[in-house]
Amino acid sequence: MARDGPPAAKAAPLAHPATLAERFDAVRAASVAFAQGLSDADATVQSMPDASPIKWHLAHTTWFFETFLLGEASTLPGKRYHPYDPRFAYLFNSYYEAAGPRHPRPQRGLLTRPTLDEVLAYRRHVDTAMHALLLHAELAPDTVGLITLGLHHEQQHQELMHTDLLHLFAQNPLRPAHRQPCAVPHAASPMRWIEHAGGQFRIGHPGDASSTGGHFAFDCETPAHDVLLRPFAIASRVVTNGEWRDFIEDGGYRMAGLWLSDGWATVQREGWGHPLYWELRNGEWHSMTLAGMQPVDDDAPVQHVSYFEADAFARWAGKRLPTEQEWEVAANLSGEMSGSVSSPAHRAMEQRFGPVWQWTASPYVAYPGFRTASGAVGEYNGKFMCGQFVLRGGSIATPPGHARATYRNFFYPHQRWQFCGLRLAEDR
Amino acid sequence: MARDGPPAAKAAPLAHPATLAERFDAVRAASVAFAQGLSDADATVQSMPDASPIKWHLAHTTWFFETFLLGEASTLPGKRYHPYDPRFAYLFNSYYEAAGPRHPRPQRGLLTRPTLDEVLAYRRHVDTAMHALLLHAELAPDTVGLITLGLHHEQQHQELMHTDLLHLFAQNPLRPAHRQPCAVPHAASPMRWIEHAGGQFRIGHPGDASSTGGHFAFDCETPAHDVLLRPFAIASRVVTNGEWRDFIEDGGYRMAGLWLSDGWATVQREGWGHPLYWELRNGEWHSMTLAGMQPVDDDAPVQHVSYFEADAFARWAGKRLPTEQEWEVAANLSGEMSGSVSSPAHRAMEQRFGPVWQWTASPYVAYPGFRTASGAVGEYNGKFMCGQFVLRGGSIATPPGHARATYRNFFYPHQRWQFCGLRLAEDR
Amino acid sequence: MARDGPPAAKAAPLAHPATLAERFDAVRAASVAFAQGLSDADATVQSMPDASPIKWHLAHTTWFFETFLLGEASTLPGKRYHPYDPRFAYLFNSYYEAAGPRHPRPQRGLLTRPTLDEVLAYRRHVDTAMHALLLHAELAPDTVGLITLGLHHEQQHQELMHTDLLHLFAQNPLRPAHRQPCAVPHAASPMRWIEHAGGQFRIGHPGDASSTGGHFAFDCETPAHDVLLRPFAIASRVVTNGEWRDFIEDGGYRMAGLWLSDGWATVQREGWGHPLYWELRNGEWHSMTLAGMQPVDDDAPVQHVSYFEADAFARWAGKRLPTEQEWEVAANLSGEMSGSVSSPAHRAMEQRFGPVWQWTASPYVAYPGFRTASGAVGEYNGKFMCGQFVLRGGSIATPPGHARATYRNFFYPHQRWQFCGLRLAEDR
Amino acid sequence: MARDGPPAAKAAPLAHPATLAERFDAVRAASVAFAQGLSDADATVQSMPDASPIKWHLAHTTWFFETFLLGEASTLPGKRYHPYDPRFAYLFNSYYEAAGPRHPRPQRGLLTRPTLDEVLAYRRHVDTAMHALLLHAELAPDTVGLITLGLHHEQQHQELMHTDLLHLFAQNPLRPAHRQPCAVPHAASPMRWIEHAGGQFRIGHPGDASSTGGHFAFDCETPAHDVLLRPFAIASRVVTNGEWRDFIEDGGYRMAGLWLSDGWATVQREGWGHPLYWELRNGEWHSMTLAGMQPVDDDAPVQHVSYFEADAFARWAGKRLPTEQEWEVAANLSGEMSGSVSSPAHRAMEQRFGPVWQWTASPYVAYPGFRTASGAVGEYNGKFMCGQFVLRGGSIATPPGHARATYRNFFYPHQRWQFCGLRLAEDR
Repeated sequence: MARDGPPAAKAAPLAHPATLAERFDAVRAASVAFAQGLSDADATVQSMPDASPIKWHLAHTTWFFETFLLGEASTLPGKRYHPYDPRFAYLFNSYYEAAGPRHPRPQRGLLTRPTLDEVLAYRRHVDTAMHALLLHAELAPDTVGLITLGLHHEQQHQELMHTDLLHLFAQNPLRPAHRQPCAVPHAASPMRWIEHAGGQFRIGHPGDASSTGGHFAFDCETPAHDVLLRPFAIASRVVTNGEWRDFIEDGGYRMAGLWLSDGWATVQREGWGHPLYWELRNGEWHSMTLAGMQPVDDDAPVQHVSYFEADAFARWAGKRLPTEQEWEVAANLSGEMSGSVSSPAHRAMEQRFGPVWQWTASPYVAYPGFRTASGAVGEYNGKFMCGQFVLRGGSIATPPGHARATYRNFFYPHQRWQFCGLRLAEDR
Repeated sequence: MARDGPPAAKAAPLAHPATLAERFDAVRAASVAFAQGLSDADATVQSMPDASPIKWHLAHTTWFFETFLLGEASTLPGKRYHPYDPRFAYLFNSYYEAAGPRHPRPQRGLLTRPTLDEVLAYRRHVDTAMHALLLHAELAPDTVGLITLGLHHEQQHQELMHTDLLHLFAQNPLRPAHRQPCAVPHAASPMRWIEHAGGQFRIGHPGDASSTGGHFAFDCETPAHDVLLRPFAIASRVVTNGEWRDFIEDGGYRMAGLWLSDGWATVQREGWGHPLYWELRNGEWHSMTLAGMQPVDDDAPVQHVSYFEADAFARWAGKRLPTEQEWEVAANLSGEMSGSVSSPAHRAMEQRFGPVWQWTASPYVAYPGFRTASGAVGEYNGKFMCGQFVLRGGSIATPPGHARATYRNFFYPHQRWQFCGLRLAEDR
Repeated sequence: MARDGPPAAKAAPLAHPATLAERFDAVRAASVAFAQGLSDADATVQSMPDASPIKWHLAHTTWFFETFLLGEASTLPGKRYHPYDPRFAYLFNSYYEAAGPRHPRPQRGLLTRPTLDEVLAYRRHVDTAMHALLLHAELAPDTVGLITLGLHHEQQHQELMHTDLLHLFAQNPLRPAHRQPCAVPHAASPMRWIEHAGGQFRIGHPGDASSTGGHFAFDCETPAHDVLLRPFAIASRVVTNGEWRDFIEDGGYRMAGLWLSDGWATVQREGWGHPLYWELRNGEWHSMTLAGMQPVDDDAPVQHVSYFEADAFARWAGKRLPTEQEWEVAANLSGEMSGSVSSPAHRAMEQRFGPVWQWTASPYVAYPGFRTASGAVGEYNGKFMCGQFVLRGGSIATPPGHARATYRNFFYPHQRWQFCGLRLAEDR
Repeated sequence: MARDGPPAAKAAPLAHPATLAERFDAVRAASVAFAQGLSDADATVQSMPDASPIKWHLAHTTWFFETFLLGEASTLPGKRYHPYDPRFAYLFNSYYEAAGPRHPRPQRGLLTRPTLDEVLAYRRHVDTAMHALLLHAELAPDTVGLITLGLHHEQQHQELMHTDLLHLFAQNPLRPAHRQPCAVPHAASPMRWIEHAGGQFRIGHPGDASSTGGHFAFDCETPAHDVLLRPFAIASRVVTNGEWRDFIEDGGYRMAGLWLSDGWATVQREGWGHPLYWELRNGEWHSMTLAGMQPVDDDAPVQHVSYFEADAFARWAGKRLPTEQEWEVAANLSGEMSGSVSSPAHRAMEQRFGPVWQWTASPYVAYPGFRTASGAVGEYNGKFMCGQFVLRGGSIATPPGHARATYRNFFYPHQRWQFCGLRLAEDR
């Protein structure tokens, strides 16, 4: 995922502005709901440069609408929008060079002012102005597209609010909790290998509302294009904590031969010996969660592992990670999506869109024929296409309905604070 | 000043516990008063490793009483103290190795919990227990000494609360203010040179209540001892902003020949060209203060300069910094202290105890015959005696009555976030 | 290219040991010839962690034969090899974990002993033992494969000797020269766009001697496989210095919108404004070369640019970099290789194998079906497949005959000290 | 010691230029003699930023004479000096800002050219010109003073050549030797405490030839001045390896309470557990020396310990380090210097001028009344008076006759690559 947000979207506008307004309210409310129960301080502190304060997420997603929908380029006739505070443009721009200078990312956590209450007031101010816009009879297609993009952008930040808060709380020796434990343990399903014969397949998103019924996609999912796949098999489910514990106990973190060169250097420099947030307490593995420290459930999917670890685990298991093309083709052929008779149960890939993002073997690069959009929103469509790897699926923190089979998430290979796990594959 | 507090004291107990109880309440209340008007976030964030969060200061000074007065070593008979939260011992120990492990200093700002309200409740809990102790009829002299030390320790942290909050607010582009401007500008007095003939003088603190009327001193001020001074002159007042502006305009920050080797490297690496917090706005120098951005007053003392800058300025002016021995002798001979006829007006050194600490040419080392105290409080009496320089006097942020002529403050030569200025001297 | 050498080879043994012995002598002699004219100091110093001393290259390539051909696993009957110095195994192992511990890479330049003369003696000692092996009547196919691999490995280090020495000499204000200027300037050919209709193509190396006439390839070039290409055009020649100067003068290094996010951060951190080694002297661009400082020839290919710069240049030009698949297909269809009537002149891509390596848009990852070899040599076949980009072609420093259309060189996107340039492409 | 050389001298010219010429030849020859047996590479590599290449020392000491004696300011009439290579002024200036820009210190080891032979030729060129100057009938006193300073400067670099070469060879796993072992082990003398009653004493150097018989001193040794000392005792000899081993075995490196705060941070960050260069081999301590690895002799003085370690050792032993004033007074009262009856054997301090420099408790600061000299040579007389500690005595690498009782050597408290040890003291 781009550090602070999404690549620009191939906007596929929804049919009815009224529906868009409802959706706007629902998405905006979800962000505020997450902040319930957080103190001003909880919402202010930045625990590392990769993470951002909750308050910053709340303000930045609001700045997006203020800047790109309510600013000078606003299509709303007759009324000129008054910015809530003109200094916020500097504070809450993430990385849009064309939108002007901005506060340095590593210093976001020093902004004790504005307070959380002031940021919530800022949100209400912008929401009011957005309602005036949303209720306008004739929204231009581009405007609808930008609003839709803003909502998907905000959903991405909702996931980041989970991961960034968890990282912050994990630094505190008191290990505070943000919510009650919610996961009901249940046994992992048996592992099956789903066979694929290979051949030519179409993947990616057409990026064209008329052909998709208006389904949204980020531009990096386009264009749809054909790929050649060799025969392969993919695991029916993701790797579990229990399986990962076997890897640890077999010495996987100490076998140089399993690791990429950069990964091995990271293991040694950082002293990695288990997934992020795991701790041994009285001989039992526990893990920090948003519900505080919890015992590690062997049957649950492993999460908070880096690409380096996922890749080493796969090699240890005698397998490999799937490519993103294999993953998407396998997901499309699973019954959950097509719902057709052509996808019998034995081809059904479980845990496609949760509870963990799944590292793939594919570097995040442009699809053939990829074009960047114009303007500030699309200024940097491809600027993150270097050094990162694609993850597919979705996580427990991904807002419902946000993920899809063509979705391309991406992170650097050493990063672990997201809800990332893995699914195995092998050649046939 | 020790990063997080004081060297242990040569405790000179006050005569009456009742007076001590009043003093306890006054000092403790002053810390809480400073935090008035701060948000939970303001009190939580750490703007750099040298600084600590306000909340941490409030808790650490409380931990001091809890640990050294109310803990196992408590002399209070009959009642066993119940710690407010046993985990706080880990969070709020600063650097006392004998008091157990502690939270890493650079991560103090990640502690969003306990909240500011919880820390204030912690203070009340400890204050209540301390009251029981203070009202006890027969406090052992050692106990009185430890309480006295704890209060002077807390006063040091009160000054740090000023400087650390100012540093935090200075990082915020909104440049928030904690209070109203309070300084009333008035013209600087003419600069006079106070002549001293040299000779043998006694400096330092005897560290013995019977000979001092019970005056407190930190152990690094002891023992009193004789020094030889050559003839010298010392400036009647400290250097002003206007004089510093001359230094800037004459190119002082670009003349390698004025600087210590390590200082010149710092100037170039950090790009220094003016005191910390100064900014040019529309061609006028302004400075960040606890009252927000304010115009620089040419007649006011320059502050927020490092030893490196003070030393270079003195060389530029054809003078030098006084040694701490010269400063103390000159201060003692000034009428303000002795109040005797032997100190006529022309020997009176102005601005002895404010508004800025005054860099001296003296490295912070042990006085001849210095002995460290025993126990955890005195564990590290001399552990900071390396690489730092002594400052004398006091600042606007020093609690009234805290400073004295023998007081030795100390910081590293590159540090600028304290209220530090300088007074010139020269050989005769 | 792997930092210190090659991925293991899919060895395609040559038919006749006699030919192999001649080839052995020729390759080994070329390394020594490069060192002619260098002082002991020139051959010892390491100018940055990415580079290695010339002496180290000479010894490490020798260690390869000593360890993998003459060591315990030697197939030579009857005689046991005596190592020249058993401590050299520690000093001159590059990164083979299975071959035991090794001297830290960044400290290679501290080895003033053994001297250059001693290293040359070490080479002669090993060469003598290798001759005994090479002249043996019946070399096992695996042995022939390992020797062949060792020679290609040494050729890779021969190129690194050029780039590492150039980097060292470029740090010296005296700008020493290792040889006479050799390039004869001539006009760049006109730029043409070679059209390709797209479709399904086979790329990569079969890795099987019987089907290739014994042609060698590194294992990362295998397996041969089919790819789908969309219609594209590729430039007939590489980008010139004159074209790069236009980019500079148009402000390319200051336009954030042209750059990848990581690239822009690098430009700002490093202050990049031109290719590595360029300097303005009296208003004229010059560049450090192995013949010392030389004027920049506008008609010559630009070199010493990073992936970040190549990618930004392509965006500035309204084009893009080719993928490695496009490059290989275009190279295969060029007349130079096939020599058949099917490749008319208008499809001929110039400068395929020199004078500069050409950055492609493709991250260096495994081909579908890629398998790592077994044993120490193949221990880490894929360990560098993370974060690097593929370069195709070859350079003036590549030994004749070393490059081929399937060859995959690779470096990190910020690295510039190799002879790297670029060729443009665009969608059709 | 200033990183690259001396503070400027209070020149005390010798009476006869003829004697000066002989001394010139002797000092210059000693530098060249040290380089005998070193390869070009040995003389070129820089093992850390604190150290310099041997070749650089040889050239820099020569540059000193070329710049300050033979350059424009030369007093030699009639003949204009032609610099050997005008580019050397940039390469071999150490830190004299007034002498123009200079090559960055950490990159001195990248200068493979000029070669060692060329540097030796440079030395001969300058020596020839110096001879013409030295044989001139009427050398101005300032000229004599500058030459004398240049020779003492070169002697300082002769000591640095020992320590820098040792550091370089210690980085090489082959542990090469520069010479044969020369130390003849003998038993350490019994430790006695030499009592001093305290009082007023004169220390420092008068800096005036007429009153010293022409004895040279660096300006930081001046002016002579009176100091008050309290009663103290000083050890008759320096601390031995055997005594240091007791400190190690008692856990001294693991007791936080023994260490200065900055020292403890260094111990933990660097993992110190013994003096620099010590290694356990088969359970026996060995140490790297210029004669290669040698067993540690329990009776020999400990060396290669930092101020932090010396200070911690003294605290562990229940003693302290002497101040530089105490050391000088005790040295002056020892019979070795005065040779008078007033210094009976029981006051004789052994090992005053070797074999190790002795850390004192005194920061390196200006003596009262210290004045910097004018001109480039004296440009930065006091620029190193910050953060360093004074060492007294001399070492096995100090040229004979170079040290004296007033001599003030100085290094940072973490530095260990010099021949530094310690002598204990205590209050009386």
